[in-house]
Amino acid sequence: MKTQVGIIGGGPSGLMLSQLLNMAGISTVVLERKDRDYVLSRIRAGVLERGTVDMLRKAGAAERMDREGHPHQGCYFSTVEGMFNVSFRDEVDEEVMVYGQTEVTKDLYDAQDKIGATIIHDADNVTPHDITSDAPYLTYEKDGETRRVDCDFIAGCDGFHGVSRKSIPDNIRKDYERVYPFGWLGILSETKPAAEELIYANHPRGFALASMRNDNLSRYYIQVPLTDKVEDWSDDAFWDELKSRLPEEVAAGMETGPSIEKSIAPLRSFVTEPMRYGQMFLVGDAAHIVPPTGAKGLNLAMSDVHYLYEGLIAFYKDGDATGLDKYSEVALQRIWGAMRFSWWMTSMLHRFPDQSDFDQRMQESELRQMLTVPSARATMALNYVGLPF
Amino acid sequence: MKTQVGIIGGGPSGLMLSQLLNMAGISTVVLERKDRDYVLSRIRAGVLERGTVDMLRKAGAAERMDREGHPHQGCYFSTVEGMFNVSFRDEVDEEVMVYGQTEVTKDLYDAQDKIGATIIHDADNVTPHDITSDAPYLTYEKDGETRRVDCDFIAGCDGFHGVSRKSIPDNIRKDYERVYPFGWLGILSETKPAAEELIYANHPRGFALASMRNDNLSRYYIQVPLTDKVEDWSDDAFWDELKSRLPEEVAAGMETGPSIEKSIAPLRSFVTEPMRYGQMFLVGDAAHIVPPTGAKGLNLAMSDVHYLYEGLIAFYKDGDATGLDKYSEVALQRIWGAMRFSWWMTSMLHRFPDQSDFDQRMQESELRQMLTVPSARATMALNYVGLPF
Repeated sequence: MKTQVGIIGGGPSGLMLSQLLNMAGISTVVLERKDRDYVLSRIRAGVLERGTVDMLRKAGAAERMDREGHPHQGCYFSTVEGMFNVSFRDEVDEEVMVYGQTEVTKDLYDAQDKIGATIIHDADNVTPHDITSDAPYLTYEKDGETRRVDCDFIAGCDGFHGVSRKSIPDNIRKDYERVYPFGWLGILSETKPAAEELIYANHPRGFALASMRNDNLSRYYIQVPLTDKVEDWSDDAFWDELKSRLPEEVAAGMETGPSIEKSIAPLRSFVTEPMRYGQMFLVGDAAHIVPPTGAKGLNLAMSDVHYLYEGLIAFYKDGDATGLDKYSEVALQRIWGAMRFSWWMTSMLHRFPDQSDFDQRMQESELRQMLTVPSARATMALNYVGLPF
Repeated sequence: MKTQVGIIGGGPSGLMLSQLLNMAGISTVVLERKDRDYVLSRIRAGVLERGTVDMLRKAGAAERMDREGHPHQGCYFSTVEGMFNVSFRDEVDEEVMVYGQTEVTKDLYDAQDKIGATIIHDADNVTPHDITSDAPYLTYEKDGETRRVDCDFIAGCDGFHGVSRKSIPDNIRKDYERVYPFGWLGILSETKPAAEELIYANHPRGFALASMRNDNLSRYYIQVPLTDKVEDWSDDAFWDELKSRLPEEVAAGMETGPSIEKSIAPLRSFVTEPMRYGQMFLVGDAAHIVPPTGAKGLNLAMSDVHYLYEGLIAFYKDGDATGLDKYSEVALQRIWGAMRFSWWMTSMLHRFPDQSDFDQRMQESELRQMLTVPSARATMALNYVGLPF
């Protein structure tokens, strides 16, 4: 098989890139290791930046989001001193869209189906070859045989554990990493959300986040030790702990119910440099991981797609390779900004095992600065709604 | 001897409090353990916030500062990527005054002399008594005998190692502390300053600060391990190391010369709560220490003096004790803000022994945010020129 851009990974970034390129008349093949149902069963983030929303619209995959998504104008921070709001609308005249990543992926599949894009599921053992040559190709196994896709470029959209990043030699790649000493225990429940906006809570017992998908679907998280297992936490135990970390007035009126999903995720900051190797470009989680505090993961993948798409368009339409040559540098600039924000949110809101009373006061002072200093609020809002592309 | 306010410590905060109270007709006695020459030989900070400048003017001790001090409109930050300016004038329409703490102290002594204030030097073994009664008093030893000062209130302006804080029982006091794993090696030299504004440098070899007192008196600092001794550093070694951490274009044109003072200071964040115990009030370093990054030490002591002075005036003039009752709470609010700023500046600019490449990138990203995001610059400027009283 022959195509212009071979895309490894059929998650939201691979699908978005494929969709935009196809719409511009550039051929793609998406190779996905799992089947579609599996991909769509993964519960992920649910807060979309304006840039992501705009890309979904450009991709013709925004109709349901525009109908069912929930624009949010701000968020709350909660401390032992009380709760306060940061209004994105007031600070930077922007908003974010609450719409689950699972729904985004589904809408992108539907859009891909509509234009007849090539998505190959159950593609085992995908491997990039001759990456630094003019004629790279991908191989994969399916139905017992090895197949080959020749292409001009390879987009590595295959996540943190994928083959793309690992195909870059160690002496060329530099990894930056921070692993946080705690995880997030999250549940999804068919209950009315605790508040109209997300609540990020700094509490002596640990971080908590009250989030939502829609009016009858809530998403809650609490910080737990990495040694905890999902089985350690009954629904009742979860709700009790969550309520103890949220403001009393919120906990008092909170609707609870059975969890329909429950899982523990570790928190990690990770970046690899460079994001281009030969004819291969890393996109999204393949190159970087943010802790979920601040909801940057999906949005950062989408900004990578944006830069790579622009570079490919310039190359194919005008023969101009500048955008591709600068992809790594330009994408990384925005990535480091979002890494900083996610690290700052994580550092400010969680209880660390070795945290002193002084450290706790620094967290509270950082939060208090947001409450009292307009420019500090504006900086937070600007980062939350998304740095410009 | 009898007075209204007994002041322990004849540094700038004790003298300022004494001066303002005397001018308002409230009697004071200042007890200082050392002689005046010793007090005036201590080299300290040299950047005054607007609030401090205003207090010096109010105290009638600003004439020389207004003549010889240097208003500064901003400062520089330097990273491996280059140097950039934060303009206090542009961001918050304010400035700071570069004028040495030693000079401030000298001017306050002169002002105290002029109005005939009572300052007792060489007062050994100053001890507060009956602090929680209506009739507290101080004792001290001088010329071989023990003397006594009866007073309504005691102001503990005797610094981190003084007796005031230690007189508050352990079960009432809560201390917050962070000791940083490095020190500052500082020199004073009669050379032209490296730049017209201060330069705060983040460098892989460690933090450096290019500061000054006047057109022919420079103050430079470099971060050193706590195990280093002053004797380890010849002037030549200091200049070489300093130049390696500053931007090349600055280092190239830098005037060097013999040091006229050289010392190593540890870096510490410390706060004690509460700042009132019975009739005694802690002021400045007696209650809190900031690392010098951000130049908050003297300025924070001055804001404590401001709040205590206002409380004492209201008490003596109108019989209103509210200001005194709220002193600790109100002063601490501003103190925690300045603690946060000093901790943030310190964390962002120094090289920590266990610092990973990721941590280094977070520092650079934080600095880069100041370069690229106006509201982040504004927040820094607002904190640097001083939070409002």
